Amino acid sequence: MTASRIIVTGGTFDKQYDAIKGELTFGSTHLPAILEQARSTIPIAIEVNQLIDSLHMTAEDRVRVLEACRAAPEQAIVVIHGTDTMAETARVVGEAKLGKVIVFTGAMIPYAVQGSDALFNLGFALASAQTLAAGVYVAMNARIFAWDKVRKDKVDGVFVPGP
Amino acid sequence: MTASRIIVTGGTFDKQYDAIKGELTFGSTHLPAILEQARSTIPIAIEVNQLIDSLHMTAEDRVRVLEACRAAPEQAIVVIHGTDTMAETARVVGEAKLGKVIVFTGAMIPYAVQGSDALFNLGFALASAQTLAAGVYVAMNARIFAWDKVRKDKVDGVFVPGP
Amino acid sequence: MTASRIIVTGGTFDKQYDAIKGELTFGSTHLPAILEQARSTIPIAIEVNQLIDSLHMTAEDRVRVLEACRAAPEQAIVVIHGTDTMAETARVVGEAKLGKVIVFTGAMIPYAVQGSDALFNLGFALASAQTLAAGVYVAMNARIFAWDKVRKDKVDGVFVPGP
Amino acid sequence: MTASRIIVTGGTFDKQYDAIKGELTFGSTHLPAILEQARSTIPIAIEVNQLIDSLHMTAEDRVRVLEACRAAPEQAIVVIHGTDTMAETARVVGEAKLGKVIVFTGAMIPYAVQGSDALFNLGFALASAQTLAAGVYVAMNARIFAWDKVRKDKVDGVFVPGP
Repeated sequence: MTASRIIVTGGTFDKQYDAIKGELTFGSTHLPAILEQARSTIPIAIEVNQLIDSLHMTAEDRVRVLEACRAAPEQAIVVIHGTDTMAETARVVGEAKLGKVIVFTGAMIPYAVQGSDALFNLGFALASAQTLAAGVYVAMNARIFAWDKVRKDKVDGVFVPGP
Repeated sequence: MTASRIIVTGGTFDKQYDAIKGELTFGSTHLPAILEQARSTIPIAIEVNQLIDSLHMTAEDRVRVLEACRAAPEQAIVVIHGTDTMAETARVVGEAKLGKVIVFTGAMIPYAVQGSDALFNLGFALASAQTLAAGVYVAMNARIFAWDKVRKDKVDGVFVPGP
Repeated sequence: MTASRIIVTGGTFDKQYDAIKGELTFGSTHLPAILEQARSTIPIAIEVNQLIDSLHMTAEDRVRVLEACRAAPEQAIVVIHGTDTMAETARVVGEAKLGKVIVFTGAMIPYAVQGSDALFNLGFALASAQTLAAGVYVAMNARIFAWDKVRKDKVDGVFVPGP
Repeated sequence: MTASRIIVTGGTFDKQYDAIKGELTFGSTHLPAILEQARSTIPIAIEVNQLIDSLHMTAEDRVRVLEACRAAPEQAIVVIHGTDTMAETARVVGEAKLGKVIVFTGAMIPYAVQGSDALFNLGFALASAQTLAAGVYVAMNARIFAWDKVRKDKVDGVFVPGP
């Protein structure tokens, strides 16, 4: 049983529908509800680092993710991140060589929308974080990529070997 | 990218509601739809081995699962199984020492029912199958168990170290 | 704005999945949550009369539904009922000529299961109760039937003119 | 059994998530799938008049809705419309005195998003269209309003007596 930490940064994964504004926004994170739905019995700390669209992430925002990974007492970390700049933040964390297992994941369809890939991706990422060797990875599309060998194909909306 | 095989045996995971009979039954497997929802881009073969409630599984049924695992050309295998006798079938497969990674998973709530753990568990099991060393495992409750060190606590409905 | 009452008797509409027993059972009614989801702003009283499968309803159970309809202070009443014997209970209430609008509805697929007709049917029945003349009706399949001119076709799972 | 027509204009009701663009857009209408889910057995024609956000509707767009209502051979009509200017279009149709029952409805949360009011509202509106006297109505929040006595309270996101 591997104690794990989920660092939440927002992204499509965690967007919810605001009925008054009529648009998808960030409220509070869905992660506690999702872990209950997953019937998890392992200790998983949830840390909301930021709640933003990854297209709006600055270099400073990425450093905040890095610092959260560095500060985490757990060896197994999942970062929930928007897909558009997931590979960029993974690079920032990867180059820091923290000696932990850090797995980035997200969703192409929000958890709150029909047909979401969020639950699957979270399960996939949590298992990856428990089993892989120390390093930084992107886990999307049922596939694990090293941080320096991945990019998002924005036309097809899938992660592919890169850059 | 690790080619994988999902061997479907039924269980709660794959039950669907029959509106005429007014009960949960087995129709066809949800797995192809689920992998599309997961936005998987890796080659995953889906094999329907049987579609039954694991409480009704006979020794012969378990051998059929074992034979499917043996026959599979892939190294990474996920078996979708009812939770009630998952540990028993895992034992049959585990004792055969097939030299592959074989991960059993299932669901406490059917995929077709609100609040299901099926999507999460499938993601968790597929990542485990891609990353673990050869062996037979049960992956439930966000946790990985060796086949000979797990039992289902039927009162709480969770998998715990055992027997 | 017509004050309304929903009398809950159970049926498929309100079944929920019990993960420990592995079957659909009755817990507490979903009606308060459903009315919130419907964003209702009218006064609707919810009364749990019984929570059973309508196949198990006795003559006495049907009289309990009749008495609840009689006692209700509201003029517009919706009865949530299992579909199998909905027409029988509607007959018991219809013959009593209570001088109120009483609309029976239910669901072929539970609210908690994917693809449920429960939300649609409840909306349909509530509007019927607000707009029809005094009388007893069955509202299913987007269609309104007088209590003495309806039966369930159990082969196709739809309500049709009858008996 | 009252033959009915659903005239689709878009609005929140029918928005779907575009995973590539990362936003809610209009694809094709969900209405055929919804009527199947509702298990409707009555003849209901579905007509896509336009698929737009009602905030973007011009006077000309509203006339297109009016002309569709006028041309419809059915006596019972439901118009699926964005909530923001639903009352304005209802006014245009109401003043034309077409001698049919025309019920406007929509949704505060898209059909494709968790917790949607779309299914309930559609059931509510279809029953209203089958049962009300000729006239033009807005049916939202489990409540029926005459076209000239309703406005949307945009702060609370509910329809209230007005103007």
